[in-house]
Amino acid sequence: MSESTEQALVVFTPSGKRGQFPIGTSILSAARTLGVDLDTVCGGRGLCGRCQVLCPEGEFPKHNIVSRAEHLSESTKVEARYQRINGAFIDGRRLGCQANVLGDMVVDVPPESQVHRQVIRKEAEHANITLNPAISLHVVEVQQPDMHDPSGDLRRLKQALETEWNLTGLTTDLSLLHTLQEALRAENWQVTAAVHNDGRILGVWPGFKERICGVAIDVGSTTIAAHLCDLITGEVLGSNGAMNPQIRFGEDLMSRVSYVMMNPGGDAEMTTAVREAINQLLIDAATEANIDVTDIIELTFVANPVMHHLLLGINPVELGGAPFALTTDEALNVDAASMGIRAHPKAQAYFLPCIAGHVGADTAGVILCEEPGKLDDITLLVDVGTNAEIVLGNSKRLLACSSPTGPAFEGAQISGGQRAAPGAIERVRIDPETLEPRFSIIGCEAWSDDPEFEKQLDTLPVTGICGSGIIEVVAEMFLAGIIDTDGVVQGHLAEKNPRIAADGRTFSYLLHEGDVTIRITQNDVRQIQLAKAALYAGVRLLMDHMSIDKVDRIRLAGAFGSHIDVKYAMILGLIPDCILDQVASAGNAAGTGARIALLDRASRSHIENVVRGVEKIETAVEPKFQEHFVEAMAFPHKSAVFTELAKVVKLPEPTVSQADSAGVQRGRSARRRRRRAADN
Amino acid sequence: MSESTEQALVVFTPSGKRGQFPIGTSILSAARTLGVDLDTVCGGRGLCGRCQVLCPEGEFPKHNIVSRAEHLSESTKVEARYQRINGAFIDGRRLGCQANVLGDMVVDVPPESQVHRQVIRKEAEHANITLNPAISLHVVEVQQPDMHDPSGDLRRLKQALETEWNLTGLTTDLSLLHTLQEALRAENWQVTAAVHNDGRILGVWPGFKERICGVAIDVGSTTIAAHLCDLITGEVLGSNGAMNPQIRFGEDLMSRVSYVMMNPGGDAEMTTAVREAINQLLIDAATEANIDVTDIIELTFVANPVMHHLLLGINPVELGGAPFALTTDEALNVDAASMGIRAHPKAQAYFLPCIAGHVGADTAGVILCEEPGKLDDITLLVDVGTNAEIVLGNSKRLLACSSPTGPAFEGAQISGGQRAAPGAIERVRIDPETLEPRFSIIGCEAWSDDPEFEKQLDTLPVTGICGSGIIEVVAEMFLAGIIDTDGVVQGHLAEKNPRIAADGRTFSYLLHEGDVTIRITQNDVRQIQLAKAALYAGVRLLMDHMSIDKVDRIRLAGAFGSHIDVKYAMILGLIPDCILDQVASAGNAAGTGARIALLDRASRSHIENVVRGVEKIETAVEPKFQEHFVEAMAFPHKSAVFTELAKVVKLPEPTVSQADSAGVQRGRSARRRRRRAADN
Repeated sequence: MSESTEQALVVFTPSGKRGQFPIGTSILSAARTLGVDLDTVCGGRGLCGRCQVLCPEGEFPKHNIVSRAEHLSESTKVEARYQRINGAFIDGRRLGCQANVLGDMVVDVPPESQVHRQVIRKEAEHANITLNPAISLHVVEVQQPDMHDPSGDLRRLKQALETEWNLTGLTTDLSLLHTLQEALRAENWQVTAAVHNDGRILGVWPGFKERICGVAIDVGSTTIAAHLCDLITGEVLGSNGAMNPQIRFGEDLMSRVSYVMMNPGGDAEMTTAVREAINQLLIDAATEANIDVTDIIELTFVANPVMHHLLLGINPVELGGAPFALTTDEALNVDAASMGIRAHPKAQAYFLPCIAGHVGADTAGVILCEEPGKLDDITLLVDVGTNAEIVLGNSKRLLACSSPTGPAFEGAQISGGQRAAPGAIERVRIDPETLEPRFSIIGCEAWSDDPEFEKQLDTLPVTGICGSGIIEVVAEMFLAGIIDTDGVVQGHLAEKNPRIAADGRTFSYLLHEGDVTIRITQNDVRQIQLAKAALYAGVRLLMDHMSIDKVDRIRLAGAFGSHIDVKYAMILGLIPDCILDQVASAGNAAGTGARIALLDRASRSHIENVVRGVEKIETAVEPKFQEHFVEAMAFPHKSAVFTELAKVVKLPEPTVSQADSAGVQRGRSARRRRRRAADN
Repeated sequence: MSESTEQALVVFTPSGKRGQFPIGTSILSAARTLGVDLDTVCGGRGLCGRCQVLCPEGEFPKHNIVSRAEHLSESTKVEARYQRINGAFIDGRRLGCQANVLGDMVVDVPPESQVHRQVIRKEAEHANITLNPAISLHVVEVQQPDMHDPSGDLRRLKQALETEWNLTGLTTDLSLLHTLQEALRAENWQVTAAVHNDGRILGVWPGFKERICGVAIDVGSTTIAAHLCDLITGEVLGSNGAMNPQIRFGEDLMSRVSYVMMNPGGDAEMTTAVREAINQLLIDAATEANIDVTDIIELTFVANPVMHHLLLGINPVELGGAPFALTTDEALNVDAASMGIRAHPKAQAYFLPCIAGHVGADTAGVILCEEPGKLDDITLLVDVGTNAEIVLGNSKRLLACSSPTGPAFEGAQISGGQRAAPGAIERVRIDPETLEPRFSIIGCEAWSDDPEFEKQLDTLPVTGICGSGIIEVVAEMFLAGIIDTDGVVQGHLAEKNPRIAADGRTFSYLLHEGDVTIRITQNDVRQIQLAKAALYAGVRLLMDHMSIDKVDRIRLAGAFGSHIDVKYAMILGLIPDCILDQVASAGNAAGTGARIALLDRASRSHIENVVRGVEKIETAVEPKFQEHFVEAMAFPHKSAVFTELAKVVKLPEPTVSQADSAGVQRGRSARRRRRRAADN
């Protein structure tokens, strides 16, 4: 009898999947039968609104079908209710679970109704993130208990998840059993379950629950950044940052390791401190996004090895000396509660894998974000902190090492140095004729030779010089001849400009005089030389291992990479020669890597495999590292590109050769050139 | 070249496995190659002594081999060291890992050197337990970290476990990472790992660790019993018991559920109380066995549904009313720490499955211990507490129900009633001529009419009457005619013996006069009638469902089953007619079931499957239950067996028929008869 039921043709776009269905079939049901990628959380109850579709009228010759308005059932009370609560549908959309097929029709699934939809990334050069989270929500009606056929609440929940969602082999743990009874009985045996793709039921909520969240966290030595995401939509709900409170135990990684060596139990203090800071970040992020902190059911973490170990409660002392043995280099899945993180009671924490004793999960995050292994071109990724973590390679090989740059690039161990914060000098120019400087500070648009600048000094005084400022001033000092190729401040120039003055047995350069006076001392120059030599030597070592002399692309990750002017980095020889428009900041690549791992579970095994294949180079045991280091101490690192750069930042003796072939970025540089010309 | 190496024939007994091996091969290595069941924890390092073998000399025609003393290598320094520490080998045994094959030989693997050896059970009627625990120990040497090939400590531990023990796909969690560094470095990179058969590495200890333990725990409403076992040898190291401290919240299950209903949060109080009691039991057991409590790495639990839920921290209120829904009826594997149990940090807790809302994991334990499903004969299993849990069936069908007997059988709600403890009357005889009683109390061998009894009263006074005493006194009162078939105390007998006296509008029987006077009141008799009727009605209901009139075997589990005289239970009609020698106590069958689950992991899926197949009968929804109940109120439950029993307990009018065919136990009964004859 059912054979003679009248059938209609349904064609889904953009997939092109098509099939015959009995009149009266719901569009959601047709989509599920054909395996069309149409989302649903509530399983067709008209609650979640995720199955919205468009049913266009007209002739579709490509699909050989005519779709008529009357082939779609009338709008239902359920859809009216949904729109009352959530606002009207756009573009005449319908709920796929409510709209029924009455005749041949075309159904268009808009991108936001697809299960594996794309999360758009801001950076134009990157592919979007596929939304494919590890944990998903499923609404079910659970059968009520029956004395005649006794079975536990949990068994009936599992049966419902199997019947309605085809989820089998489900497991759970004790915490679910503590809330299950009440959740089932609160909304008449309808619940929403959060199910991990490994089969664990992590939570149940009474009735329909529409949102669970995840947080991607980048635990840096100095700052902790958290990105709160809606796991159902992929949307970033907010980003929060905080200082890493471990700073009070030591500014840099090695001083924190030393603290543990000197103070047994110090690791536990630092573990508690960072966990508390993360808990506060979660509360802040949840409050700002107007969600409950228990809606956070997943967290992903990137961190350097010492931060990674301390956060996990693992003593980091082994990382402080050879052979720099990690307790584990593997990716980790742990209950967030087991590390004292307060979110959903069963929130899951995923740590990206570490690479080596000095190359952490943060570098894995940078690799996941930048994907150098997907290109044939050779990419150099540099993440500069107290250590520079360096990745070099392409689709054939990836190499990584860490180089001990020290904290000079972050403004530490520099006489007037400070972190990047309002009041810090971040940009510097020195007139090669007069040796007079001009600079700008964070928080003020005007340069120091602009009358506007003076007006602001009362409310925003100059407080010091940050990492990008110190790099620019040293580079400009070199370009102006104030320091020679060995980095020696040229005392005889004191005659020309009293800013150059004796400072004990060496000389310094007066950059700014005021409440805070900033001199660039000989030692400051030495610190930058040491740091840049270490960074360059690490890069060079990897290039040796790759047997290459030049790289095709350079990406500078992290705060350092975002703030410095890459041209000055190249003038100082921090990074090797590269066509200038192939050098760019990667932004917070480690944090973005954590966000990718949060939203797309497939990226986890991917990065784990990539990291296993990375060739780890230990600079400490490579004699060539020392050679490169000594060689790289001098200014400038000789190259054809140097000449171009020097021209771009407007050296007094411009040469014309190769300007175009070096691929100089014209936009901003040209503007600057014009502005400087106007200044002069 | 290696092809020409001289070979020797090795025959292992009792398996008969044989093979050719190069001269110099260790016996352990030969055994592993052939798949001979020869144990080792240390992997051939001469530390654990588990691979001891015997190498008998002589001709073995059955195996067609001549085994000579000189075909076995000399005893080694490693064996000498082992014997210095652990005592000399018995019977000239050798360590299989140290003794090498020098020529044709027979190697006998004694039972205690087999991996899956049998753990002997005391009860002769039962099969032994196969030692096959879920968690095993493995000694490994872990490769040290190498800067040239960086990898985490955990990865190298896993590699060692794979290389030396063929364990693959291993996982672990955060707690292992907290101890791993130190464990690896403490004994020069030799560690012992505890590995769960599901692939989790649960713990590591520096060097060689020879013992891990498990505890089987039976959480009763009244008492908690713990059996500490060595998981490597299967040996029971000790048994400890404690009162369930939840008693202060209510004597029986339903009063505890009521406590939660009346006092929100009361479940948490009771959860804390029982967990603390278990923690104290673990400490006591560990202290007595001279082990550390952290050596306890596995626990198995049986409990009735309410105790099960309270221990797990699940609110038991749903179990207090129809439809009596369990939160979960499935077996559970949880981290013991997650339920507040303090043992090894990663100790695993296994709960046997529950059967229905009133038939708990304790009944599953009884079934696992008694295995009624392995027989064609029909077994009745009865576990009497406040509820009687009843199982009936054979290899074809198993049925279970629970019947609300109330606490009378435990001495509660009886005027002079008390728990089974020193001073409690436990045995009673009444002379049918004089109506004078004699009795014995717990803690004293002599009967009350023995002059020795009087002497002891100062130090051990009569304090009350316990469950078995109340059953015997009511049965004897009936046999002596003091109560009639309706249970009415016969007031006219006051003329015959003043022990029968008016007690308000009914009559009572004076059993003992002293500091504590014990009268059996009309109400006491009624309580026993209600309890026995409930028990019998439950049994009868299952028999109806099986369509049978008699059972082949009866096993009475638990403290009640151990203490009562089964003959009196049958006289009162607690249990149906059965050939007397087929009625026996099952001892602490639930606890034994927990011990089986502890030692033999295969028994877990077995009992889970058995329990799934059990037909659950809910007495509350069966009209026949009430019918049977009303019918069973009267004394005696008429039967041919009754006549025999009455004879055995020496009624004044013995009959001779069927005494032998009833299969009366002769030993103790005959002694009693003789003693009584002497008394008279």
